[in-house]
Amino acid sequence: MAGAKLADVALEAGVHVGTVSRALNPATRSRVNAETAARIIEVAQRLGYEVNITGRALRTQRTQTVGALIPDLTNPLFPRIVRGVEDSLEKAGYTALITNTDNDAQRERRMIAALTSRQVDGFLIASARLDDQALKEITEEGVPVVVINRTSADARASAVIADDSQGIADVMAHLVALGHERIAHLAGPGDTSTGQARLKAFEAALDRYGLQHRSELVVRAEAYTIAAGTRCLRELLKRGNPFTAVVAGNDLLALGALDALKENRIPCPERVSVVGFNDIDFAERLSPALTTVRVPKYELGARGAELLLDMIYSGREISTVTLPVTLMIRDSTAPPPLPGTGLFGL
Amino acid sequence: MAGAKLADVALEAGVHVGTVSRALNPATRSRVNAETAARIIEVAQRLGYEVNITGRALRTQRTQTVGALIPDLTNPLFPRIVRGVEDSLEKAGYTALITNTDNDAQRERRMIAALTSRQVDGFLIASARLDDQALKEITEEGVPVVVINRTSADARASAVIADDSQGIADVMAHLVALGHERIAHLAGPGDTSTGQARLKAFEAALDRYGLQHRSELVVRAEAYTIAAGTRCLRELLKRGNPFTAVVAGNDLLALGALDALKENRIPCPERVSVVGFNDIDFAERLSPALTTVRVPKYELGARGAELLLDMIYSGREISTVTLPVTLMIRDSTAPPPLPGTGLFGL
Repeated sequence: MAGAKLADVALEAGVHVGTVSRALNPATRSRVNAETAARIIEVAQRLGYEVNITGRALRTQRTQTVGALIPDLTNPLFPRIVRGVEDSLEKAGYTALITNTDNDAQRERRMIAALTSRQVDGFLIASARLDDQALKEITEEGVPVVVINRTSADARASAVIADDSQGIADVMAHLVALGHERIAHLAGPGDTSTGQARLKAFEAALDRYGLQHRSELVVRAEAYTIAAGTRCLRELLKRGNPFTAVVAGNDLLALGALDALKENRIPCPERVSVVGFNDIDFAERLSPALTTVRVPKYELGARGAELLLDMIYSGREISTVTLPVTLMIRDSTAPPPLPGTGLFGL
Repeated sequence: MAGAKLADVALEAGVHVGTVSRALNPATRSRVNAETAARIIEVAQRLGYEVNITGRALRTQRTQTVGALIPDLTNPLFPRIVRGVEDSLEKAGYTALITNTDNDAQRERRMIAALTSRQVDGFLIASARLDDQALKEITEEGVPVVVINRTSADARASAVIADDSQGIADVMAHLVALGHERIAHLAGPGDTSTGQARLKAFEAALDRYGLQHRSELVVRAEAYTIAAGTRCLRELLKRGNPFTAVVAGNDLLALGALDALKENRIPCPERVSVVGFNDIDFAERLSPALTTVRVPKYELGARGAELLLDMIYSGREISTVTLPVTLMIRDSTAPPPLPGTGLFGL
């Protein structure tokens, strides 16, 4: 069974090797008598003949493979996206070759080069940097690309994003309804589309509710990590400008903020409310259970893969799909402390 | 720069295309004058020539790629293992092509076939099933394989495992020292090496401490998932045989057990202590913070990749490496309730 060769299939089917090769390749199948092709396919399946994809790639320029670049698999956001990607690809007989770019531009370039030389049919890119030279180069070469959970400055890549603006608007409405007025923002990295969009939505909400813009209450994280969240919240405390709620750029930043509050014995949510973004697995099991914006992780991946397959198969035009989000209200948000009892004597 | 062809390199270096090809391939480089080869490599680098790996694979049978089969990327154990794998591979110029097998034997076979036809140089397999026909086939074909976080019934695969026996022994010593005597076990799936090893260690510890073997206090999970943990703990409660502590086969089973306790208003750790295995990210941030056995996740991956590279490059013989584990005592374990106050009126 395993290890059957083209010649074995030809012998068994009573045809020439070249006929087998043409029959098994969808691109050339029409050049073989339909009945013969059907018999060859049946024989190949029965003998367990495994098409040598590397050989086929040289002939048809299609490998049924796409490269999926993930910035940080240890962020629980991404394994769920990958699951969606894989399920969509599998229906089309495609396989994702996943690599972890570690949010590192050099590593991302190497990985794209490695996958390009393996002739993947397209790329799904979930890494976040906007100024992305490697991405620019592959779209220039005409390789289909879909970016996931980010927009692209490049008009030749499609994108699937969550509705960042709506998410932050919902968060701000929730905090204002609780009575918060001094709301801080731990902004995501400035070179990411999510970092930019969420900050912009935060500022728009301040205007909407007539709240003062206080630049001391906005700190930019250098990365979407727990450690960066801790550093940012320490910086906020050091600045000494009172706040009763923190809107974190994502859940990992929120976790870091909670760590920094704990080390300063500032109880959440009694003194300071904290909100995240993404709703990673385990967010509801944390202490306190995290109020956050649920991003449709699986759907981001599944839709991204569908868009990419459309581009590969039918040259479908570039598009951007925005998926809706949901505010998950849990235990890390509460009304601000009474005047005079709060942080900084607020 | 990008897109330079073999012919461009040949023109610039003033040599034939065949000479460029031989010089750029480590396997044939010695057939080119050393000075010429050095010049060609310099030119190729300067022009940004990208070796077509698919073409090369046909010639040298080495792709600098390994397939990494992960059973469930959404289990936070595995992204950390992948990180270790990638760091070790990268030092050797190798790339991991990661696929998610979803603990599904069919899908695993398809993925192995897909990666084999792309001529990966070897496999790292972290999927858990012991009776693994696909694994058997690839080792029979002489493809180097290292299994991670599991042993293999196949003598032709190397393995890197955590010390399951020591981990459970430490857990049992901790629980017995707290005063527990009626200890239940949510065993991992019976067709996994971790499930088998941890159950065996659990039973050995009962003997060591002179505790009675109670078959009603052992429930087998059908999968390493939160949902399975919940089902198992409900089953334990239904059986009505008193227990004051639960040793879960891994952290996800422990999380499921905590859910089932909560839905039955049984406080942890006041009435029932719960222990996990692996120490996944976020285990210490849960409510209650989970007592668990820390498995050296990154090292499992890093050592596994090193073993595989050894097998690929030097045909190093098969070996099994066992890495030490550490008991992390947190808030989900405490002394059993006082007699007469506990669950089932214990």
